[in-house]
Parts: sequence; C-alpha cells; structure tokens
Amino acid sequence: MDRRDFLKKGSLAAVAAGVSASTVANAASVIKWKMVTTWPKNFPGLGTGANNLAKLITEMSGGRLQVKVYGAKELVPAFEVFDAVSRGTAEMGHASAYYWKGKVPEAQFFSTMPFGMTANEMNGWIYYGDGQKLWDESYKPFGVIGRPAGNTGVQMGGWFNKEINSLADMKGLKMRIPGLGGEVLKRLGGTPVNLPGGELFTALTSGTIDATEWVGPYNDLAFGLYKAAKYYYYPGFHEPGTILEALINRKAFEALPKDLQAIVENACRVVNMDMLAEYSARNPGALEQLVNKHHVQLRAYPDDVLAQLRKVSADVAADLAAQNPAAKKIHASYMAFLEASRKYSRISDLAYLTARDGG
Amino acid sequence: MDRRDFLKKGSLAAVAAGVSASTVANAASVIKWKMVTTWPKNFPGLGTGANNLAKLITEMSGGRLQVKVYGAKELVPAFEVFDAVSRGTAEMGHASAYYWKGKVPEAQFFSTMPFGMTANEMNGWIYYGDGQKLWDESYKPFGVIGRPAGNTGVQMGGWFNKEINSLADMKGLKMRIPGLGGEVLKRLGGTPVNLPGGELFTALTSGTIDATEWVGPYNDLAFGLYKAAKYYYYPGFHEPGTILEALINRKAFEALPKDLQAIVENACRVVNMDMLAEYSARNPGALEQLVNKHHVQLRAYPDDVLAQLRKVSADVAADLAAQNPAAKKIHASYMAFLEASRKYSRISDLAYLTARDGG
Repeated sequence: MDRRDFLKKGSLAAVAAGVSASTVANAASVIKWKMVTTWPKNFPGLGTGANNLAKLITEMSGGRLQVKVYGAKELVPAFEVFDAVSRGTAEMGHASAYYWKGKVPEAQFFSTMPFGMTANEMNGWIYYGDGQKLWDESYKPFGVIGRPAGNTGVQMGGWFNKEINSLADMKGLKMRIPGLGGEVLKRLGGTPVNLPGGELFTALTSGTIDATEWVGPYNDLAFGLYKAAKYYYYPGFHEPGTILEALINRKAFEALPKDLQAIVENACRVVNMDMLAEYSARNPGALEQLVNKHHVQLRAYPDDVLAQLRKVSADVAADLAAQNPAAKKIHASYMAFLEASRKYSRISDLAYLTARDGG
Repeated sequence: MDRRDFLKKGSLAAVAAGVSASTVANAASVIKWKMVTTWPKNFPGLGTGANNLAKLITEMSGGRLQVKVYGAKELVPAFEVFDAVSRGTAEMGHASAYYWKGKVPEAQFFSTMPFGMTANEMNGWIYYGDGQKLWDESYKPFGVIGRPAGNTGVQMGGWFNKEINSLADMKGLKMRIPGLGGEVLKRLGGTPVNLPGGELFTALTSGTIDATEWVGPYNDLAFGLYKAAKYYYYPGFHEPGTILEALINRKAFEALPKDLQAIVENACRVVNMDMLAEYSARNPGALEQLVNKHHVQLRAYPDDVLAQLRKVSADVAADLAAQNPAAKKIHASYMAFLEASRKYSRISDLAYLTARDGG
C-alpha cells in the first residue's frame, strides 16, 4: 500500500470515526529514533543535555519524531557510539568528537584544543567560519553528520594532592587527563592516564593517580572529588570550551521531511546554547560551596608552567595537523580563526572581564 | 463552522481531489504572523537576526506558522514596537528591552547593564536563574512575553575625536550613548545624546557630537564610523552583552497548538545563540580591517577612568532599583548572580583568556 492509498483510507476511517484526519495522518507517520550516548543515563549537564535534545525534538515535532535516549552501555558501550550511529543501529548519538581520535584523528579539532577557542569562538568558527563544512567532510565517509549540541565552557585545571610550584612538579605526575591535554602533560614528563568518570574518585583516593581533571565545579562537586584531593587548579587550559556533539545517521536524516530536518538541526543548536547556560548558572554556586563549605584550596598554575604548557600545546596541535591532509586543512582554518579571536579578545572579552574585576 | 467540521469537509474534498488529507489540513490551518522590529530592514546582525527568527519558525513548522518581518517605520516606528505587540497590531516584535524604559524601567535589566553580565552569564541568569520569571512578571500587565533572541557580545567603548587621558576629559563630552551608559557619562560631567544609528556618522562629522558608541567592529565598519573619528576605545563597559529580545503577544501565543509554541520558543533560543556566533565570527576580521586598512587608533580607557565608571555604574543600577518594587527585586537577583559570576570568572573565563594571551 503506498502512502497516498494509506492516507485516503486513513481519512475515510477518520471521518467515519469522527476523528480529525490530521490526527490519523500524524499517528500513521510517527517516526521513532534511538539516541545512544557516551554518558551515564541522566548524568548532570552532559546526560541531561542529551535528554533535553530528545525532548525538544519530540515537542517541536508534535510527537511525529520521537527520540529515546540510551545511557552508556544500555545499548552500546560509550566508545562505540560513533560506530552505532554510522551503521544505523541508532539514528542519533550524543558524545564529544575527541572520543573518535583512533578513527578520525582530526575530529579532535571539533571538540576542544589545549589553549584553543572558547565556546563562543567555537560557535563562530563552526556556524559562520569553515568549521561545519570541514566537520561534514571528516564524517562523510562514515555516513554520519556531526553537529554542536552542548558546551561545557572553560573547564577547570583539575584536582591535585600536591602543589604545582614549577615545571619540575609536572615530572612523573600521574594524572587522569584524556586527549591532547594528556599529550601535553606527557611532553612535560608526566604520565597521562585515561579513566572513565566513575572511577576517578577511587583512583585518586587509592593513589593510583596523583591528580585528575574532570569538568568544572558543578560536575566535580557532584563526584565528591574535593574529598579525594586538596588543591583545585585553574585555568583548564586543556579544555577551554569543549563541544558536545550530536551524531546523526545521514540516511535517516535525509529520509525525514524538511520540517523535521529543520527541527533536528535547531534542537541541536538550542541544546548547544542551553548547556552552556546551565554551566554558567551552576558553576559559580558550586565553586562557592567547594571553597566555603568544603575548604578546597584554589591554586593558579604558575606563570612559567602556563608558558611551557602553551608552547607545548602549539606543538601538539601541529603534530596532529601532520597526521593526514584533512587534519592539516582543519588545523590551518582553526589556527587562523583562533589567532584573530585572540587578538579581538584583548580589546573585547578579556579587556572587559579585566576591567569589571577591577584590574 | 467549528474545527472538526472543517477538517471533515477538508478530508472528503481531499479524497475527492486525490490530495493527501494532511496537506489539506495544513493548508487550511496556516497561521500568518507579523513581526515588527526596531531595526532598519535587513540591518546586519540585528535585522538579519530578526529575519532568521522568522525563517526558522516558518521552516520548523513546515509553513504552518508564517512570520513576515517589518523593518522600523514600515508598519510602526521603532519605539512603538512594544505597544504594537501589546495591542496585537503585530503578533511578534524584535528589539531590545532598554528601549521601553519610559514604560517599564526595570526592563533595562533584561537588556544590559554597565559593568554587568556577559552574554553567557545573562543566559545563565535568564534560563537557569530567576531572570525569565522576573521578565515574565514585568511584561505580564502588557499582555506581552519577552524572550532572549540575540546577543551582541561585549560591545566597543566607542569612537572619539580626542584622547581620553583622565576623568577631566569626560567633562563636557557630548557623546551619543543611550540608556544607563548615558546616565553614567552624565554623572561624570558629560552630556549623553540619543540618536538613531543612521544619524551617527553625520553628527560625528559635523561636530554635533564629540563621540559615539554603536555596537562593535562588524557594525561600526559598515557604518563607516572610522571616517568620522580617529580613536576607537575599549572596552564597552556600558554594554557587555546586550540581549536582543523577541516580543510575543501572549494571546496569540496561547492560541497556538503546543508544537508551534515549542517551535516559537526554541527559534528564539536558536537566534539568541546564532547572533552571538555571527558577531564572534565577524568582529575579529572587521577589527583587523579597521586597524590595518583604515589605520584606526585603538585606545584603552585609562584605569582611573574605568574605576570611576565602575563605581558610578553601581550607583546608577542602585538608583534604578529604587524606582519601583519590581526593579528592586530584579536588581537584587541580578546583582547576586553577577557577583557569583564575577568571582567564578576569575578562575574561569578571565583566568583562561589571560593565560592564553600570555599574561
């Protein structure tokens, strides 16, 4: 039975039953999607952001497109989310692009870079620069579309059990710090370790690691990391504005009518902004609790440590660029945008925040 | 004829004509809205943001809700936009809340405050703090709903024909600077002037004014202000993250089905993020042009001037709070959120931008 026949019969049945035809047409055309995620189900900020994305799509479509969210391991393990969306096991995913560095090394540029762009700068590059075009090219061979769908803002440097007073203190440091930030630490003589969020507290308490970064005050407070380490370092040079991504199976997306495509695209944009707003609202209060109630010691990385971290971060980015032609092209675009943004920030965000702070 | 009868007849007609019932139902229920704006039609950033908002609503609704945009003066003058939406002449508006200070003084808190919150902080306060609730209370008597629908980010201090070396240079200064920023200038002995954007260039060239602020490099370059003044001052202490607002007639909104309500709400959120992304992308390049091609002289306000501007800005906000009970309540909420954000920024955005810049 083709669509037109179905609708004709549906309409006649509707009239007979005294139900509006459009309701029947809608009921007949409900599309159900699965969204797999790299987060524990309902994890604050990240997991609830994925829930929010699904909810927005369902609401804006009047229930014509219904998305069900699966936490990590519920349908597939966290690090198989990309493959699951690629082969169509799930139509959507929610993750961050640096998780796929083994498969798509250059994807890391669409997540975050040490000493790289802030959330607002990333949005500028993705939506109004070459960012989205380059991202589309990277994921095209996998039949996957990537879209920004959340941002943590500037993260924190992390939790340490000893003070970092000089570069010498980075040597031999065993720290949980994934991705390019970990590579930076390694070049300063430290040992980066990768562990899932749920294991950080125990690893830090037992001395398996000397330090860990996670996200920022809101998430770090929830994990109780202040009970396992005394010093809380800033700034989070390694993740200055991490984009969470929505992954969409290209065939499933292209099969949608235009209005539902627009709804999916824009739900991603809403969550991209909304998650940053949530972190902007919740981090300051969580920081106050950490400092005033839990007596956490805030520490700034010393200037000479930051200077070296900055230098090595540029080397790490250049080495990533050398891995393949796509990475080279993306690196060039990213760095040009970053450099212009850095100069602009001097008379804009940086100048304003400095003046507001009284300095 | 009630809706059910209409749909029955529509369905039968559709079957007879061989057209899908849902198409007929859609055609029958197209809703047409007008959006009046305070911007010249298609004005870069602000006017195109309003266009974008209308386009998103039309696309996501599959054409069921079609919004037509009117530039300032096309349907009503710029400063009558609020009243037009209030009385239902137009179902939507696009503006900024500080324009209504004569009618709703406290609305200025939902636009921007001198030495106030940045774009991301405003979003935190509006979406996850008390901001939206307080905004709803303010506009309720007028039958209007206000929603964030765009942000300029940190603006620039403005264009001057003489250098500002001390507080003495602010005395007698005739500057186009609207709203609370103008009130701050007045208390330092200057003369604030209010002029529409289109008149700035002539006023500055003819010497009617000594200085003017507008938005930032992208918009200021388009206006050619660099031909009329030599010095470009930063930071824009008076507008650190101006929210553009969507105004929606409450009755028209409540008459929409739930899915269209969700589409309108979320289209506002998308534009809120998207406009800031556009400014983030276009300002750095425009600044390079201004400096390298047009030899504009960038100048920072001196520290003692900034210190005094900061002090007086707090007084101006407190005086606004004293105007009515609503303003007092909003001021308390705004200031608490600002203070927590300011402290957090010291270890987050401000610390990161400083470290990235090498300082």
